Amino acid sequence: MARLDESARGVYLIAVTPFTETGALDLDGCDRMADFYLEAGATGLTLLGVMGEAPKLTTDESATIVNRVLKRVDGRVPIVVGVSSPGFAQMQALTGRVMDDGAAGVMIAPPGSLRTDDQIAGYYEQAAEMIGDVPFVLQDFPLTTGVQMSVPVIARIIKDIPTCVCLKHEDWPGLAKITALRKEGATARRVSILCGNGGVFLPEEMERGADGAMTGFAYPEMMTGVVENHAKGDMERARDLFDAYLPLARFEQQPGLGLAIRKYVLYRRGVLANPTLRKPGAALDPLSRAEVDRLMARLEKRLKELN
Amino acid sequence: MARLDESARGVYLIAVTPFTETGALDLDGCDRMADFYLEAGATGLTLLGVMGEAPKLTTDESATIVNRVLKRVDGRVPIVVGVSSPGFAQMQALTGRVMDDGAAGVMIAPPGSLRTDDQIAGYYEQAAEMIGDVPFVLQDFPLTTGVQMSVPVIARIIKDIPTCVCLKHEDWPGLAKITALRKEGATARRVSILCGNGGVFLPEEMERGADGAMTGFAYPEMMTGVVENHAKGDMERARDLFDAYLPLARFEQQPGLGLAIRKYVLYRRGVLANPTLRKPGAALDPLSRAEVDRLMARLEKRLKELN
Amino acid sequence: MARLDESARGVYLIAVTPFTETGALDLDGCDRMADFYLEAGATGLTLLGVMGEAPKLTTDESATIVNRVLKRVDGRVPIVVGVSSPGFAQMQALTGRVMDDGAAGVMIAPPGSLRTDDQIAGYYEQAAEMIGDVPFVLQDFPLTTGVQMSVPVIARIIKDIPTCVCLKHEDWPGLAKITALRKEGATARRVSILCGNGGVFLPEEMERGADGAMTGFAYPEMMTGVVENHAKGDMERARDLFDAYLPLARFEQQPGLGLAIRKYVLYRRGVLANPTLRKPGAALDPLSRAEVDRLMARLEKRLKELN
Amino acid sequence: MARLDESARGVYLIAVTPFTETGALDLDGCDRMADFYLEAGATGLTLLGVMGEAPKLTTDESATIVNRVLKRVDGRVPIVVGVSSPGFAQMQALTGRVMDDGAAGVMIAPPGSLRTDDQIAGYYEQAAEMIGDVPFVLQDFPLTTGVQMSVPVIARIIKDIPTCVCLKHEDWPGLAKITALRKEGATARRVSILCGNGGVFLPEEMERGADGAMTGFAYPEMMTGVVENHAKGDMERARDLFDAYLPLARFEQQPGLGLAIRKYVLYRRGVLANPTLRKPGAALDPLSRAEVDRLMARLEKRLKELN
Repeated sequence: MARLDESARGVYLIAVTPFTETGALDLDGCDRMADFYLEAGATGLTLLGVMGEAPKLTTDESATIVNRVLKRVDGRVPIVVGVSSPGFAQMQALTGRVMDDGAAGVMIAPPGSLRTDDQIAGYYEQAAEMIGDVPFVLQDFPLTTGVQMSVPVIARIIKDIPTCVCLKHEDWPGLAKITALRKEGATARRVSILCGNGGVFLPEEMERGADGAMTGFAYPEMMTGVVENHAKGDMERARDLFDAYLPLARFEQQPGLGLAIRKYVLYRRGVLANPTLRKPGAALDPLSRAEVDRLMARLEKRLKELN
Repeated sequence: MARLDESARGVYLIAVTPFTETGALDLDGCDRMADFYLEAGATGLTLLGVMGEAPKLTTDESATIVNRVLKRVDGRVPIVVGVSSPGFAQMQALTGRVMDDGAAGVMIAPPGSLRTDDQIAGYYEQAAEMIGDVPFVLQDFPLTTGVQMSVPVIARIIKDIPTCVCLKHEDWPGLAKITALRKEGATARRVSILCGNGGVFLPEEMERGADGAMTGFAYPEMMTGVVENHAKGDMERARDLFDAYLPLARFEQQPGLGLAIRKYVLYRRGVLANPTLRKPGAALDPLSRAEVDRLMARLEKRLKELN
Repeated sequence: MARLDESARGVYLIAVTPFTETGALDLDGCDRMADFYLEAGATGLTLLGVMGEAPKLTTDESATIVNRVLKRVDGRVPIVVGVSSPGFAQMQALTGRVMDDGAAGVMIAPPGSLRTDDQIAGYYEQAAEMIGDVPFVLQDFPLTTGVQMSVPVIARIIKDIPTCVCLKHEDWPGLAKITALRKEGATARRVSILCGNGGVFLPEEMERGADGAMTGFAYPEMMTGVVENHAKGDMERARDLFDAYLPLARFEQQPGLGLAIRKYVLYRRGVLANPTLRKPGAALDPLSRAEVDRLMARLEKRLKELN
Repeated sequence: MARLDESARGVYLIAVTPFTETGALDLDGCDRMADFYLEAGATGLTLLGVMGEAPKLTTDESATIVNRVLKRVDGRVPIVVGVSSPGFAQMQALTGRVMDDGAAGVMIAPPGSLRTDDQIAGYYEQAAEMIGDVPFVLQDFPLTTGVQMSVPVIARIIKDIPTCVCLKHEDWPGLAKITALRKEGATARRVSILCGNGGVFLPEEMERGADGAMTGFAYPEMMTGVVENHAKGDMERARDLFDAYLPLARFEQQPGLGLAIRKYVLYRRGVLANPTLRKPGAALDPLSRAEVDRLMARLEKRLKELN
């Protein structure tokens, strides 16, 4: 399997983890989900992110899911696996296993205790040493991790660690960061920048130099549409599409609640057999479901107007 | 001047503070700004909020601004003044002064050190004791303050403190909180709930029982439009309006950066003579200005389609 | 094996995890360490706490250590195992395994995201449901977890969850909390309170109603001495002992650095074959070692004066 | 009045603010307090620190206290004034006033929102620009501010800002930081390092290169004793003294509670007319007072043994 490198672009879907109504793994659902993402134009998948409910899985379950999806995708697109862990031993063990199974790379978020530039750079140096020559995605997501990475510290990591090939950019506000990182000479190498935050800044991010998205909005076609129209130079069409989906994307982009919304939309779209979250997560309440239903109906109407 | 009470509704604009290019107070600009908000249909104003750059003013400057705006508005709408302060002595002094000048009430955000329900309730009991019979707005804004107020603690404050007449609701996600507070019997009294977060959830908030907005989105007409159409029962029209403004509202809703965007839009709209922020704030860079210009142009186009 | 219950008292040592110089598990060292703690008068052991470098171990290593120590101790004292985990599935799996192996109970720290009383109580209700009838220690350690538990929320957990049998008390300041929890009628049941923070408040804690210590100061004899003299009513002797050890206890009580100091002292005392910490931890630098050496020398001198 | 410079050394007492029983300023008490500190060997005073209950004072009260103490001290020792403020305008106004009144310099703590090295350095550059040529003390106190300053960022501030003449060192653990800052070539200039944290690491701090203490332990004679014996090269005597006071110093070093303990000890010692804290602070409860009484009695006994 080809390894992830600095040329990664397009839309990497952060995959949800399908469960049965009782919270057991739904492995057939994993297949369906992977199929759906690929049909929607995903150029990659990311498994075991926070939105994949990774921390709620046992070590064995994590391995089972990765293995299943890798088999189903069978090399058609690269698969990145989240291996963030409180300790290096566990990170190393999981990395070894998923790379053996055929993953293209791993993703590492910083532990919440890091504060200074030195602490952040030092952490990634040690992590990179532990996982050897495996390419990794640097996850910059201060809203969730509490860790703020400045442009100089990201540049330092890129310079010092050749296996850092991609930035999952999820700072908020974060547009100036993309511009700064893409400035002539800002980084020793040009790494891939794929954006998160549910895609709610994707048009601006693409124009400032991002290579695509790595997030899980339940309508991947919005993201692939924006990325493709940007590539064609048709930003007006990209923005029209984006604006149509924005009321729902904004609604999905509620911290803590977003995954339940995302799973409900995927359920409504026929991708998931049911919208169950594993505890301590809860499924969407009826009032919120009605709000999503209305947003979905309005989206369909708006899409028709556009076409 | 009538005091703020539980019946507050409509749109309370969080006012920006106009500065000259060198960062001095622009008092004529205060008049123009107040006029603009009232013409846009504001049912109230809120001064010296975070978005009013309150912490960057000296005590004397704060008093000057409040006095000026109170004179200009001259009782046409109630004016709320933010008096959050690290200590009660300063809060008490400022409250006394602005109430003497004719403010309708004050707004109090919790200090970031509060954690437990008891600490939060205890803080507001002490604050209320310090300011006497002055009605106050309880500001619930975890993203900025770091303080999470649960529904039981808000209900406890409403029950124990009769001068708490309004909740500035700015939790995110926060829709379920409105529903919970509006549930039969959830609170001892029905207080006003006015929503923040730049208005990006206003249609859903109104439907769940909010009384309006208290925030500073640079197009107040979106908010008054949503609130009025909701009152008329025309939620489809409310949502059409909301959706048109959302691409820009989302862009303005970037923490830290939002005020510079807001001031730039108000400058572009002719309300502010210039978009200066006082240090340590910075004006918008050219790239961001171009993005705002484009969003404003698309907004105008979309509004024409709607009408 | 007898299960942990509300009568737990004395000194539960938070065990360090011995590594070889290269960072591999030192299982013979586990035996020596267990022997040392028991000879020093430990009435219990706690494994896989933060100070046991639990997050740095793979799942398999954790199980190996627990198994080894359980065999060596062979029921002479109860053994508590830390099972805090980002997700319930992993917590459940680990709890099942260690209880099968003969542990007396588990210890659960709250995840750092909890803020309100409802969130904290809700978390422990779900955790307790997941681990079934296994008795657990509630870990209250705000300096490290960032979660502040008020007396009402602790009382609520004790009332609602019969399997909560012990509080590892590690708030700072925390003396008033012990007094409040021991007040007539404050809690539905009298649970065990064992204190942490390296023992640096142990005399005051005992006098306010604690049942002992659960911490890892490298001179367990200080803690057993204070607890025993308190039981005999000889608080002056307890305080004399405490004061003698305090300069070193204070030095060990440095966040982040404490474990390296503790391991170095245990190494100097012949308990550990070497003072290695697993990465990303680092062994003590020469200057700090010299400071510890001096403090140990002064302690010996002071103990002679006392006897 | 001579201005503070890099040669500051000895013991700068963080002064408490005396209140009457009803919470009014006790200006006669300010005189008595200043006299006491000077008699105890203080080489400087620091006013309006957190421990001076600065945030609880109105702007006018702050100015009154500074003025009163400056008059009483009358140039015998330099006086530093805390001017930390949420905004630069207020910081600038207060700095101007106290320097006009004869202060030797100011002290600035970072606002809690700073995270990255660039943010911290940028903040101090702006602050220094605002206060002009006034010398300032850089306050490094992560436990309270939440801001972690690495050695490189401190070195950068020292290099870039000539008016930064002193570091109030209050990191914990922080010994390695002193060693790193005193390493040959680590900083562009040798600035003064005065240590906080209630003096509980003072012997080790002096040996690693600190110039003294800037903190408010209620027995200044411990700190002057350690500093003087260190200067004479008699570290054993310094440590004997330190150890005698440590049980009480440790007790005073309880976050949030420490000031009430400190004021109670100063009241017991006849320095304060009463131990009142201004709200929302509370005086010490009877149980804690009894604990302090016992620690004071044991201290006296131990001091007799030493002499």
